[in-house]
Amino acid sequence: MFKINDNYLKLPGSYLFSTIGKKVKAFTEANPDKSIIRLGIGDVTLPIAPAIISTLHEAVDEMASADTFKGYAPDLGYEFLREAIVDFDYKRRGADIHADEIFVSDGAKSDSGNIGDIFAVDNRIAVCDPVYPVYVDVNAMSGRTGHYIESTQKWSNVIYMPCTAETNFAPELPTEIPDIIYLCFPNNPTGSTITKDELQKWVDYANKVGAVIIYDAAYEAYISEDNVPHTIYECEGARTCAIELRSFSKNAGFTGVRLGFTVIPKDLKSGDVTLHSLWARRHGTKFNGAPYIIQRAGAAVYTQAGQKQINEQIAYYMNNAKVIREGLSAAGYTVSGGINAPYIWMKTPDKMTSWEFFDYLLDRANVVGTPGSGFGPSGEGYFRLTAFGSYEKTLEAIERIKKL
Amino acid sequence: MFKINDNYLKLPGSYLFSTIGKKVKAFTEANPDKSIIRLGIGDVTLPIAPAIISTLHEAVDEMASADTFKGYAPDLGYEFLREAIVDFDYKRRGADIHADEIFVSDGAKSDSGNIGDIFAVDNRIAVCDPVYPVYVDVNAMSGRTGHYIESTQKWSNVIYMPCTAETNFAPELPTEIPDIIYLCFPNNPTGSTITKDELQKWVDYANKVGAVIIYDAAYEAYISEDNVPHTIYECEGARTCAIELRSFSKNAGFTGVRLGFTVIPKDLKSGDVTLHSLWARRHGTKFNGAPYIIQRAGAAVYTQAGQKQINEQIAYYMNNAKVIREGLSAAGYTVSGGINAPYIWMKTPDKMTSWEFFDYLLDRANVVGTPGSGFGPSGEGYFRLTAFGSYEKTLEAIERIKKL
Repeated sequence: MFKINDNYLKLPGSYLFSTIGKKVKAFTEANPDKSIIRLGIGDVTLPIAPAIISTLHEAVDEMASADTFKGYAPDLGYEFLREAIVDFDYKRRGADIHADEIFVSDGAKSDSGNIGDIFAVDNRIAVCDPVYPVYVDVNAMSGRTGHYIESTQKWSNVIYMPCTAETNFAPELPTEIPDIIYLCFPNNPTGSTITKDELQKWVDYANKVGAVIIYDAAYEAYISEDNVPHTIYECEGARTCAIELRSFSKNAGFTGVRLGFTVIPKDLKSGDVTLHSLWARRHGTKFNGAPYIIQRAGAAVYTQAGQKQINEQIAYYMNNAKVIREGLSAAGYTVSGGINAPYIWMKTPDKMTSWEFFDYLLDRANVVGTPGSGFGPSGEGYFRLTAFGSYEKTLEAIERIKKL
Repeated sequence: MFKINDNYLKLPGSYLFSTIGKKVKAFTEANPDKSIIRLGIGDVTLPIAPAIISTLHEAVDEMASADTFKGYAPDLGYEFLREAIVDFDYKRRGADIHADEIFVSDGAKSDSGNIGDIFAVDNRIAVCDPVYPVYVDVNAMSGRTGHYIESTQKWSNVIYMPCTAETNFAPELPTEIPDIIYLCFPNNPTGSTITKDELQKWVDYANKVGAVIIYDAAYEAYISEDNVPHTIYECEGARTCAIELRSFSKNAGFTGVRLGFTVIPKDLKSGDVTLHSLWARRHGTKFNGAPYIIQRAGAAVYTQAGQKQINEQIAYYMNNAKVIREGLSAAGYTVSGGINAPYIWMKTPDKMTSWEFFDYLLDRANVVGTPGSGFGPSGEGYFRLTAFGSYEKTLEAIERIKKL
């Protein structure tokens, strides 16, 4: 008789965004005349930039002719894309990363989910709290998190690193020693980030205690301040302790196009075994490459025209972030984020819980955001708004909130 | 100190196709004047059909405009694709499968690799021998296969079901009871298949012993004989015991386009828990959908024009299969397959090992095939040729072999 992976049964109920979806649906059905503004889920709204569109068309045409048709892609991804990544994202930042250390994938969510495969079950993970729910859920699925404690909304075997107003929304080095540390800067959901000196402390700590850092830099393109690292490999010693996850979803609007990559330096080892060799085996056995036409689109992101166009999109979203941040501040709310990230993190007013404020905002302003508690227990009393809407809708949403 | 998943260290050396690649490279460097014909790896060569190309262009244009831009896809895949799949691949075959039982993915290799996530480690798997190496390798990675025995080239905890001339290249019901049974018909690598009555026996057996069948139907489009099932759900009772994996790689040439799907009927349960709910959770947490433009391309496969064009491609490849099969037979070789699948499976002559024959064929005819032993111990003494080359090259390859 076959047996299921019963770790799945330990996962608490439905996913954050499906609950939001249900609440919004119920409200809309009850109030068909109200116009809802959605600043909840982190999905982009601007179309794909023209330079990328024209490359997609070219690549589609290549697939139409036997001479230029492409079948199975190389295991690590096409070299033209990996070389562009290395030049632009690493060499330019002074980071010592090579093209054969890049693994092209269908996105950072898959990589976040799958990277655990190459680690033993009995590793202890540390996560920021609040945090992108996928890190914890995928570790729960593989049996790495112990049991879920309903009263605290924490897993028994996870080290939570609170990121609240008290810690300036940055994690402090944990008192218990973890084996795997998840860091995401600029951060989802708080929109905060840390300086290069602060990140260096984490790299030094990981090297000292023998931990590996899984560094999610999906929002790197939104960094506007000078002293903020764009990649963990700007820090000395990161090649022996860090894996970096990157995405094209938010910088180039690829949420529906699907492309990302993982960097594993060959110096990152457990004894004599490189994590690179393990991930190469995983990648070559359980994955068959991102589509050729999508990899071509990825390379177009790094062209001069592509960069100019996506930077305009990022500027558009970051102007929305400014509208949200300044508008809410002016209305007396306590806000953070929105300077190096497309997320604004606000304290709920009058000690409301995150979900109470969600309901209040939906009911009174017809604005949808994301309850902070959905990202972890320390997110309680906070609320996330995203800058990915249109300028007009964002402006209107803030006006409505101001009037409350 | 972090610990790796040391199951990876138990995996025997390099992957079949990388060894072939190295041998061919060495031969080409030593013999730059020889023209190599590759009938080894199962990659397609015909370009994507015009009806699919024009849909890809349309979908790219949709991504260029804010009105029609698509961000994150629905978790299970777009309904337009899932409905097309259900109508064409299931309802038309009399199989009771619904659109919400289809999970669209980036390909059958990913699904073959990831499906193990929802099962406990202590399930015993049964595989055909020879078999597509991914089934065994991914189970080895998750610790389900015991240890590898060099002398027999078998894993200690896997039930091997020999598929040789003696069994008419079909597996017999195993004497030890497995928990998970991998079946692939039409088969890679042998090109053989089984009748609907024979498959019904497997479904009945699985339901009787409480096993789940993972049924890989990636080559379904190549079936030419009437009594061969196109889906396992043509068999009575399959909804309570079978998961089906499907691919667009070989029917529509999507090896570089990447699209597939997995079917999990809601009647397939362990106690009260549906495997559908577990896979939905896995799919929603560790995957973010196939690209919108690729899902549109998938739907174009099911249009009248798409069907006409891909059927012409399949006919082209199957004519190659005929050329190989009849040519080798005429030359005195013992061959099978090539009637319901694009693979021809031949007995090596003069009791050569599979790799001896590989070297012999490369050296003497400059033709590259795949050693049967690479697919499992019972593949020893066999050799796989694929029908995915051009007609002219296929013809020439067979002429060269005939002359040996």
